[in-house]
Amino acid sequence: MTDWNVYLVTQQRHSKGRDTREIVRAAIAGGVNVVQLREKDVPARERYELGLDLRELTRDSGVPLIVNDRVDIAQAIDADGVHLGDEDLPVEVARDLLGEDAIVGRSVSFVEDAREAERAGADYLGVGAIYATGSKDDIDDEEHAIGLDRLESICEAVSIPVVGIGGVDASNAAMVAATGADGVAVITAITGATDPEAATRALGDAVETGRRR
Amino acid sequence: MTDWNVYLVTQQRHSKGRDTREIVRAAIAGGVNVVQLREKDVPARERYELGLDLRELTRDSGVPLIVNDRVDIAQAIDADGVHLGDEDLPVEVARDLLGEDAIVGRSVSFVEDAREAERAGADYLGVGAIYATGSKDDIDDEEHAIGLDRLESICEAVSIPVVGIGGVDASNAAMVAATGADGVAVITAITGATDPEAATRALGDAVETGRRR
Ligand code: NI
Repeated sequence: MTDWNVYLVTQQRHSKGRDTREIVRAAIAGGVNVVQLREKDVPARERYELGLDLRELTRDSGVPLIVNDRVDIAQAIDADGVHLGDEDLPVEVARDLLGEDAIVGRSVSFVEDAREAERAGADYLGVGAIYATGSKDDIDDEEHAIGLDRLESICEAVSIPVVGIGGVDASNAAMVAATGADGVAVITAITGATDPEAATRALGDAVETGRRR
Repeated sequence: MTDWNVYLVTQQRHSKGRDTREIVRAAIAGGVNVVQLREKDVPARERYELGLDLRELTRDSGVPLIVNDRVDIAQAIDADGVHLGDEDLPVEVARDLLGEDAIVGRSVSFVEDAREAERAGADYLGVGAIYATGSKDDIDDEEHAIGLDRLESICEAVSIPVVGIGGVDASNAAMVAATGADGVAVITAITGATDPEAATRALGDAVETGRRR
């Protein structure tokens, strides 16, 4: 069973010049629970090559690796699954291609969409953007902050795991977890941190704190 | 065995407001030999949905359907294969995912790359850009016109089918075919034509004329 406490979404461009492999290695040392290869602005060939390296790093440490959008890259690098948004292939199609054992995640912002994704067979939900972040390229739909009340409603509406995403960092991760969310998904809170390993650990501690509330 | 005489690459944005389904229907009526779903600027979900429709149209008429770049969309719509460029997944990876019967094509502009693609298992090559077209978004690398001599060298260097692409229309398709190329690949020569069916037929006639030379 996958733990969802701290879910890292990679983004080379927001890693302060450091390579994504270096960020992922540090996040693993800091106890990251899931890694998603995103890098939407990088060509497929380069994402594939990066993915092969991340697969090696994550497999060695037993961390699930998810690929954003591209089911074919997930297959090619033997990832554990895919994460899909509104503009990506439907959950059912990804399931057909990847099989029952794959992890298929879905981004949603509304209770009805969350229920629909669960019915369609999603294994978990990325819910957000919780907080507005200003950097539109970070996370799908993040320009519309949904807040903690909506997140809580979604957590109550579905029985699959939920991770809150969008503007989450160590200062608010406890509140996110206190809504009933299973974890937090972040980009820059880890990729942009001076010490990504410590940042990952701080996020994990905050999630644990919030969960006990 | 696939005939390659006239290979249509779809591009909604260059179809003068007409739907790609309408263009493909007309091209089929005009005798098109292969259709490639490209639409790089359209989200995966929309490409998938368009692809399902194109699959129905092309299957009914026995025309092979190829998907640009996305192996997963090709799988999802049961296309006949994929067309890959330098920035897409490697030919060998697509072959692994799609199997021996799939058509895997590769864009190349140089003799050495053509030989390498053939060795990697490509079933055909899209070679270009033959002529400069000015519309940079049309076809990969089209900004660098390679001309007919280079095309001829590539045709001589490989034994797999070659289609010339980039700035090809009914006025120069015969010359392209006269180099030994198996056909011509076009976007706007069909999608931008007042009568796409007649344009397809004119291209086919020109290729036949050039081949007899
Ligand atoms: Ni170009």
